[in-house]
This record gives sequence, C-alpha cells and structure tokens, in this order.
Amino acid sequence: MTHDGSAAKTSAGNFFEDFSPGQVIHHATPRTVTEADATLYLALTGSRFGIHCSAALARMAGLPRPPIEDLLAFHLVFGRSVPDISQNAVANLGYAEGRFGTLLYPHDTITASSTVLGVKENSNGRTGTVWVRTEARKDDGRDVLSYVRWVMVNKRDPASPAPEPIVPKLPDQVAADRLKVPPGLRPRHFNRVLSGSLHRFDSYAVGERIDHVDGMTIDEAEHRLATRLYQNTAAVHFNAHRERDGRFGRCLVYGGHVLSVARALSFNGLGNVLHVAAINGGTHANPVFAGDTIYAWSEILDRADLPGHPDLGALRIRLVALKDCPARDFPLRDTGGSYRPEVVLDFDYWGILPR
Amino acid sequence: MTHDGSAAKTSAGNFFEDFSPGQVIHHATPRTVTEADATLYLALTGSRFGIHCSAALARMAGLPRPPIEDLLAFHLVFGRSVPDISQNAVANLGYAEGRFGTLLYPHDTITASSTVLGVKENSNGRTGTVWVRTEARKDDGRDVLSYVRWVMVNKRDPASPAPEPIVPKLPDQVAADRLKVPPGLRPRHFNRVLSGSLHRFDSYAVGERIDHVDGMTIDEAEHRLATRLYQNTAAVHFNAHRERDGRFGRCLVYGGHVLSVARALSFNGLGNVLHVAAINGGTHANPVFAGDTIYAWSEILDRADLPGHPDLGALRIRLVALKDCPARDFPLRDTGGSYRPEVVLDFDYWGILPR
Amino acid sequence: MTHDGSAAKTSAGNFFEDFSPGQVIHHATPRTVTEADATLYLALTGSRFGIHCSAALARMAGLPRPPIEDLLAFHLVFGRSVPDISQNAVANLGYAEGRFGTLLYPHDTITASSTVLGVKENSNGRTGTVWVRTEARKDDGRDVLSYVRWVMVNKRDPASPAPEPIVPKLPDQVAADRLKVPPGLRPRHFNRVLSGSLHRFDSYAVGERIDHVDGMTIDEAEHRLATRLYQNTAAVHFNAHRERDGRFGRCLVYGGHVLSVARALSFNGLGNVLHVAAINGGTHANPVFAGDTIYAWSEILDRADLPGHPDLGALRIRLVALKDCPARDFPLRDTGGSYRPEVVLDFDYWGILPR
Repeated sequence: MTHDGSAAKTSAGNFFEDFSPGQVIHHATPRTVTEADATLYLALTGSRFGIHCSAALARMAGLPRPPIEDLLAFHLVFGRSVPDISQNAVANLGYAEGRFGTLLYPHDTITASSTVLGVKENSNGRTGTVWVRTEARKDDGRDVLSYVRWVMVNKRDPASPAPEPIVPKLPDQVAADRLKVPPGLRPRHFNRVLSGSLHRFDSYAVGERIDHVDGMTIDEAEHRLATRLYQNTAAVHFNAHRERDGRFGRCLVYGGHVLSVARALSFNGLGNVLHVAAINGGTHANPVFAGDTIYAWSEILDRADLPGHPDLGALRIRLVALKDCPARDFPLRDTGGSYRPEVVLDFDYWGILPR
Repeated sequence: MTHDGSAAKTSAGNFFEDFSPGQVIHHATPRTVTEADATLYLALTGSRFGIHCSAALARMAGLPRPPIEDLLAFHLVFGRSVPDISQNAVANLGYAEGRFGTLLYPHDTITASSTVLGVKENSNGRTGTVWVRTEARKDDGRDVLSYVRWVMVNKRDPASPAPEPIVPKLPDQVAADRLKVPPGLRPRHFNRVLSGSLHRFDSYAVGERIDHVDGMTIDEAEHRLATRLYQNTAAVHFNAHRERDGRFGRCLVYGGHVLSVARALSFNGLGNVLHVAAINGGTHANPVFAGDTIYAWSEILDRADLPGHPDLGALRIRLVALKDCPARDFPLRDTGGSYRPEVVLDFDYWGILPR
Repeated sequence: MTHDGSAAKTSAGNFFEDFSPGQVIHHATPRTVTEADATLYLALTGSRFGIHCSAALARMAGLPRPPIEDLLAFHLVFGRSVPDISQNAVANLGYAEGRFGTLLYPHDTITASSTVLGVKENSNGRTGTVWVRTEARKDDGRDVLSYVRWVMVNKRDPASPAPEPIVPKLPDQVAADRLKVPPGLRPRHFNRVLSGSLHRFDSYAVGERIDHVDGMTIDEAEHRLATRLYQNTAAVHFNAHRERDGRFGRCLVYGGHVLSVARALSFNGLGNVLHVAAINGGTHANPVFAGDTIYAWSEILDRADLPGHPDLGALRIRLVALKDCPARDFPLRDTGGSYRPEVVLDFDYWGILPR
C-alpha cells in the first residue's frame, strides 16, 4: 500500500474477508527447480537420502536421475501460496490429504493454485480459519502435489460480518489404496550397503518406535536461507526489527524447515524411506527459534502393500520433532493430553520403502 | 608481502599512487556463471522476479531460459575489480553511467577490465579519489555491463606528490535514448497473474512513491556468503578480528548486498520491473551491519518510451533502502540536506517493464 | 538404537572394538557432485583459484571444463567415511599418503571405502587409535583419491581386551615421483594476468615463506553448511545442545573447513597452484570455533620436476592456519616444540603449478 495518494501498488496479502468457499487463487511465479536447489537443500538440512544425492542410487531405484526431495517440492509449493493464503496468518493449524504425484526433477517448472474449501470465523471476531486445497503441476500438466491446509487468518475489519461457516470434512489419513507410486520407482537392484541402511519394509513392525539419536542446531542464517529459497515471504521469519515487538520477541523458524531437519535426522533409522508418498496430517506443536537443537523420533503407525508394486511397501509413520531434548524417551503429550513443551512437530506421513 | 627476505608474492592491492588516467587494468579470474549462482542469490536475497527463477515466465518474456539477475551480474563484475581497484579503498563514493548490455546466462563467462578516468588527491594528503570505468564482456566479446565508479583510496606514502587532478565529467543519468533493450526481451504474452504483479509500465506515474512494506534482516553469514560468491575480497566484510579495532568496531556489510536485498523487497510494488537497464547513480549513505533490518521505498523519477519496443517502457526509479525503520514515511534527507541516519542506500536506475 | 524393545534400527557408529586390520568397509551413499557443490564451496570459502570457477581458465590449463576443487573432493570422500570411521572419534590425529588421481567433474559420482590398516589401544583402556586407508572411485572405476588417516576412537566397553597392536609404517611424505598429474592438465596457454598471480613454479624457492595477509572469520552457519554439504555427520559440529555440556562447551568447526579457508586465503601468494596433487600430512593443532578469524602462511618445503610434464612443476608446501593472529611472524611452535595456541592447522601437501 502506498501512503502517497497514488493507487496501491503493493500487496498486503489476503485477509479473512477475502476468502470464500469455491474461490480459486492462481499463485504467482511458477518456479523452475534446479540441481542447485537440491544441493542447497542438502547443505541446509544434512539430508543423506541416497536417491536424491546419488545418480547411482537413483538408477538402482529405477529412476533416470536424482529427483528433487519430496519435502523440498512441498516447501516450494507452499512458498508459492504464502503471499495469497498466509501472509496474514496467525498460525498454520494443520495439514491433511497431502498426496505426492510424479517426481520433480531439475529443470521442471511448478505452478500452483489453491481452492478455498471452507471458512469459519472465530468467536473473538478478529480472526477466522480458512481451509484451502493447494495443487501444483508441472508444465505438462502432471500433478506434483496436492494438499489441504488450514490457517488462522486475521480479519481486515473486526466489524465485518461473519460468513456462513463451512468446515470441510477431512479424513484422518490418506487411505493406503490412494497412494501413488511415482512412475519408474522400482528398486529391484537397490544396494542397502550403499544406501546407508540395511532395513527394508519388512524390517519394521507396527508400534515400533525409533529414536533418531542425532541432534541438529538451527542457526538464524540457515532457516532464513531455506525459507527464502522457497520464496516463502512470511515476515515473521525475516524481519527481526518488527518481531522484536511481536508475539515471541524474535523471528520464528519456518515450521517446514523443522520438518525437513527432522526428516533428515530420521535417516538414522529410516534410511530406506525412498519417497514421501502422502501427508496424513501435521501439527507445529510449539515454536522453534534460532539456536534450538532439533531431535526426532518416529513411530510406525501402519503398514500397507502397494498392489502392482511387489518391490515396494508403504509405512505410515509418525515423525515427532523435539527441541533441546533428546528423543530417547519418545516424548509427545503430557498427562492432560497436550503436547509437551519440547515437542515442536507431530507429523504423520506415508513413506515408501523397498522390500 | 613476505616478511622473510624473499620476493613479494602477495598483492596488497593498488594505492592512490598506482593509478594514472588512461591506464587499463585487466582483472583476474574470468568467472563462469552457473545456475547455482542464480539459486544461491535467490536464497540470499529472497528475490521473486519471475523471469530469473521461472523458465515459464522467461519464455513469456521472449527469452530462451532464465537469465542471471542484473544485479548479480553487477556484483560479479564488481568483485573482479576489487583486488585491483578498491582493496585499499576507504569508501565507495559513487556510481554513474552504468549500462547493461546483453543478458547473462548460466555457463557464460565474464571477463572484466577497468580504465582509470581520473585521479584527485584529497587535501589531507593521505587519500585520493580514483574514477574508473569498469567493463565486462562475455567470451564472444559482447558487452555485459559498463559502469563508472569512484572510490577514496589510501596513498601508499603520504609524502608522495599529488598528481595533476583530472576529474571526469559524468552525467547525472543515462539518457533514456541510450538504454539498451536486451536482445530477445519481448513480453508479448506476459502473464501478470503468474508474474506476481498486475501493474505494468502505464500503471506508474512520475512522482509516485511506493512503500515496499516488508523488512529483511541481514545475518553475518548471509552477507559473507553473498560477498564471497562474488569473490569480492574487501577485508572489511570478512575479517572480524581486524575490524574489532577498525573504524566501526565490526564488519561492514557489502553495500551491494544491501542493494540486492532492497531490489528484492521492491518486488512488492514493482514486480514487473523485468530488467535493470541502467544505473544512473548510487550512494551508500550509511553503513549496514549484521543484524540490521532493511526496508525500502521507491520513487518514480521519470518515464520513457523505448523506440522499436512497443511492448516495453522504461521507468527511472529511485530506490531507497533504510535500516531498522519502516518506509511508510519515505525518509531520505534531514532539513540540512544530509541523508537521515536510517538511510543506507540512495540508488537511481532505469527499469524496463512490459506495457 | 531403539529404547522400545524392537530391534535396533539406528547406527551408533563403530567403536574401537569394531575395527580389525584388513577389514574393508564400504561407505554409504555414493555422491553425485554438481556445479552447485562447486558454487556453494566458493561461497563458503572465498576460493578464487581460476580453473575451478572459470571455463576460460580451465581451457587454458588444458581441461575441458572447470573441475571440482581438490579439497572439496577430499571433504566429500571424508564425509562418506565419517558414519563408519569417526562417528565416535575423540580426535582426528593425522593424515598421510594422500594422493589425488583423476579430476572430479560435475555429474561424476564418487563411491568410497576404507580398509583398516592398524589398531592400537591406548594405555587408559578407554580409547584406541585406528588407522584406515580411504579410497574413492568414480563409477567408471577411476581413482579419485586415496589417503590414510588415523583417529582416536572410544571403546564401546572399557573392559574389552586390547587387540594385538598393529601400527602401519607411514611415509613422511608422498615421494615426488609418485605424484599423479591429472589427465589433460597442460597449461601451455595459461594467462597469468587472468589467473590472478604472476608467479609460476620457478618463482618459488625452497625455504621461502609467504604471509597470505588476509583473514576470514568463520560463522556458525557457514561451517555447518559446509560440513552438511559434505554429509559429514559428526555430532560435535552440529549439536549445540549436547556440546554445551561437552569438552569445549560449544560446537567445534570441522577441521576440513579450516583447511579449505586456509587454502582459499593462500591464493594471495600461491594463486597458480592449480592442483593439490598429494597430502603428505596434516595436524589439527588446536580447535576452531565460530567467530574465530583464520589467517594463513605457507612455506615452500621442496620442489620437484614432473617427468613428462615440461609445462608443470610441483612444490611441496606447508600451509599453516592461525586463529585470531595475523601471519606476519609465521608462528608455528613454541620453544618447547609444541604448537603455539594460535596455530590451528599444520598441513603438508604437494601443489602443481605451471612453469
């Protein structure tokens, strides 16, 4: 917004009143992915998942060359949507029905749009919840990713009337029979010495919990580099001058960076989870700030065959990230059922492994 | 310099006495640009200008693939010149007559040289001002960039005699009819929803001022990564041990990084400035240090048609960067005519937009 | 290790008891190198060695395109070996017999393995020294690098019996006649203005010492980005939460990053050392932490012709890195023969220069 009498040239993002169910928003700046995105992601997260950093392992998994990490694709799509959806968000409340489609490769371009699924004003009259389905495609029209998220958004004017509440019905999980196996993924000759983990689909039992052992401290420059790489413009991550007087007194780390660090840590114990096929849900339970050290643990929630893919199996995995607390005791909720203060992420996904 | 009796092997850079008008200096290390330079630049600055990060938008603008950002090209050229021109500079005093030529693409190699235009000793007898024109070309000889800068440089020996002062006459601006439109730039099918800004050349009026709203905090690691990427060797940015006892008591952020952050912030309001065609002038008004938050505002100084390019128009834009001060009141100078202390950059350029 | 009753899925790394002479360990995650690795390395270290960042200079040196820096190759190979060799290391004690083979180029994939050469329990019964030769090859089988290192490793169980001590006999240096000149390296048309240094092989005399003048401060985010880029998993670099109660009270900078910064600083004085052909030895004399400023000096230890390569010569060089201490007095050891506290690296290598 200009303050100079001329017509507004800048975008202040959308407020609660700007969203209505059925509305489709085309997001700006189709993004061409490069090898450098993949390399920088590796340097920012410490990921060691082999098909993404090794042409040799990609080939052993049936792929022509290393695809972009699934969560990097997620962040790039999420970043497209921020200026339109969550520039004025108070909180990212949750995710559901995330499904990955075709793999993303360097030089692919992704374009994203979001459809508003629901709106509900909060009882305080100052904010409301908006549900959107965000979808991303390649230039050739193939699906890269589709997911639902809901955010608490400020109203522009607390006096504006509440809309008819529409709350979409969302499943607790993506059903196993709706998982998409990326074309080509067929690890018939997968070498588990070279991949860094001897464990395959059949090694994991439902109920098993894994302490990923290692910890990774997040520096201010690191989360900002990551978040800018995704062109995520949420001011709370970048503007320390404003945040000094804000809710936390300092900049917040993008929750997606915490997710990526946790996924990278999970290599130690889940090294053969080749592909994140679906996001069942996710909660950013507590805020993360620069200087916090992230630890992680996983729990195997379910197992599924993948019909037509005898070389592969799917594990439904809860990935929990903690701050400044080793994971050996698998902390999650207190006796009252609330997340413990050290829990920063509770993420539920389907991962695909070789058998 | 060795302190061991052997012949000097190291360069201490040039001092004021080493420059004489007409002298041509060939700078070391022709630099091959990569996609990774572009990606890292994006992660360091948060730039969202679409033709540089999206093959789809580049094609809509008539280009074969995403070119390197103009200011990244500028920094790479500037970096070549530092060891020869400004290793012993006390201050970068100004820029003039900057003209961009052909666009730079990944795998192009740039070679730079500088011609000394003038020298003038300062009355203190310890420093002098040196004017140089720096020019960069691709391997095939095509112009990438040419600009004049002047720097205050230490004398090697305060007792050495003052040279005949020669002060080049420099224009206040690059005349609009001297702007070069890069070959191929023809945004006939430019999609302004996908580009992220609905405003085109005709949307902007002379005298209009735009608050770019957002703020970006600069971390120590970030400005150092950027400045090393450009192979700019000025010690004041890197050597905290020495700077502890220096002029500011700490490392200074490369003014070019501040410029790039300000240009990235200007996306919100000037999102369709596809190309920086010329640098009319620029002043680093106050120093920036790690931890400062940069805000920016722009003023439209002039408008020009581009004969032979009916799809394009040029805006002359003042871009002002501030530290730790939102831009809503458009601060610039105090009543005495000096830059206000929060003003860190006053930059004057020609930008090209679609009509 | 899980704490949940299920079979262990995570690796805690190998302990002293897990190593036995003759054992061969195949390291995980063959790594495909990219242009982005090279660019990020440049941004992290400030390297200006021209054949690595300039296609023009690479061609003048006889090479088809810019190869990956030798020390970046070293770090990538070293990183492969950490989870198996030094995850539980107390200290990296030394290096010997490092020989570089064929040059690494973007899109090459490296696979590494290590052979245990010796083991010797320490008298305290809690740790032991392990000697390994680590070797890396490309997909086509060609040698990239081979080197010996020895590390002090914790025992899993102090009560386990000491093995028969086997201590390999290692040469003080790689003999000059065993140096490999990379295929193609033939700088017949090398332009020493463009390379940034006028000095060639014949310019250097045995015994000559060079102060590299410049200093480079290392930030926390920088060494972590570098170390993660190499997929080096040593917790001491990343986990500030754990290290707060550790030996140093804070995270340690990967010694390899210090080496790379020192080599980059050595450009000012040794700018035409085109290639690191061999590592004779190296000692990380004192720890480096974020915020330390690295200075460097070099001493020419020896000179050698390279039969069959009339355009080239080899210098044996000692590269010494210092923290928070300029190099003008060439500090190394105190009168008692111990490294001075400001000395952080004493590295001995063979470099190849044009004549």
